[in-house]
Amino acid sequence: MSYRTLGVIGGMGPAATVDFLARLLAATPAKGDADHMRVLMDCNPQAPGRNAALAGEGPSPGPTLAAMARGLEASGAELLAMPCNAAHFWADEIRAAVAIPLVGMIEVGVAAVRVSGARRVGLLAADAVLRSGLYSKALAAAGIDTVEIEPDAIMPLILRIKAGDTGPGMRAEMAALAAGLVERGADTILAACTEVPLVLDQSQVSVPLVDVTQALVEAVLERARR
Amino acid sequence: MSYRTLGVIGGMGPAATVDFLARLLAATPAKGDADHMRVLMDCNPQAPGRNAALAGEGPSPGPTLAAMARGLEASGAELLAMPCNAAHFWADEIRAAVAIPLVGMIEVGVAAVRVSGARRVGLLAADAVLRSGLYSKALAAAGIDTVEIEPDAIMPLILRIKAGDTGPGMRAEMAALAAGLVERGADTILAACTEVPLVLDQSQVSVPLVDVTQALVEAVLERARR
Repeated sequence: MSYRTLGVIGGMGPAATVDFLARLLAATPAKGDADHMRVLMDCNPQAPGRNAALAGEGPSPGPTLAAMARGLEASGAELLAMPCNAAHFWADEIRAAVAIPLVGMIEVGVAAVRVSGARRVGLLAADAVLRSGLYSKALAAAGIDTVEIEPDAIMPLILRIKAGDTGPGMRAEMAALAAGLVERGADTILAACTEVPLVLDQSQVSVPLVDVTQALVEAVLERARR
Repeated sequence: MSYRTLGVIGGMGPAATVDFLARLLAATPAKGDADHMRVLMDCNPQAPGRNAALAGEGPSPGPTLAAMARGLEASGAELLAMPCNAAHFWADEIRAAVAIPLVGMIEVGVAAVRVSGARRVGLLAADAVLRSGLYSKALAAAGIDTVEIEPDAIMPLILRIKAGDTGPGMRAEMAALAAGLVERGADTILAACTEVPLVLDQSQVSVPLVDVTQALVEAVLERARR
């Protein structure tokens, strides 16, 4: 098995990027160093905020993300992944900037929900993803309902995770948000923000949990194969 | 606080690179994404093997490492770090290829040993590091004795860690190697291979453990500060 060189548009947030890299390693069948994929990464935590941009309160991160993609391509990346759901609002701008493919996280997430057989998905996502309808529109087109978390309930948690809080208290709070969505009728929880799985796993949720970060890892492994 | 952009020459092995990135994140005082350092990484697990090269059984990784360094510099890196002790045998070749500094892991490791007050260091390192005397010569110059692990004892463990085995059995085997060095008179254990701290921490060692990966993280944070 050999792989094409992956370019990672990262830093949104940096801990989510490291989580993605660690899972990519764990998911790669390898007997030694040389069996792993070459990965170029631009982890740029100074990229303009996605939530502020979509709320009309800050500049678009699109040009920065496109420049990062171009830099990775120039360095030898043969395909791109970006472990941040919200940043995919600017996926078209990134794709227009390079000649290599971007493995689309939203498409991957929607495909994972479809194969799960979910009918009513509880969406744990950041304000930008909720506001833009990135998932809810795509899921609706696939005939799948969504129940969305309230931005005011989840944004303080995401900001605390980005500040480094991934302890038991935080894990309990995120699990409670998931439970609230189940009470509102969700038959599946979609972890559609890369900070969410840093503090939430299947053991904390009473219905199936679809983790888009893991789905992206698997899609990258599949698409990077030579 | 703001930082210069770090370039990481990685992939030796990839899990050690991710460990370095995770610790760099954890050690950075940050209230949110934007407080973290921008990090460019070339994680290239296909770089020629360091142990084979120093045993005269394979090509030198020097040209590959120098090319990676040049690529990171061209992409905007302002200083370099390479979380692999053995690869520092080629540090001069890397430094000659770029105009930006490489934070030298061996110098950082030796400095950490000096401040620890150790007199006789038990060296847990790969064959290439033992064979080249990277640490033993520098420590001797500082008046510090070394007790070295036998390559035949540690290399099978390092290769198993690179193949993904970081379980309790492996942890016990690595701890036993450390204990053997203490029996031979070591008053400090030096984890001088980036795979070692993936399975060994202070709780498993009866004398102080100096972890060069952590020392590199702290040196990078210090030197990257603007």
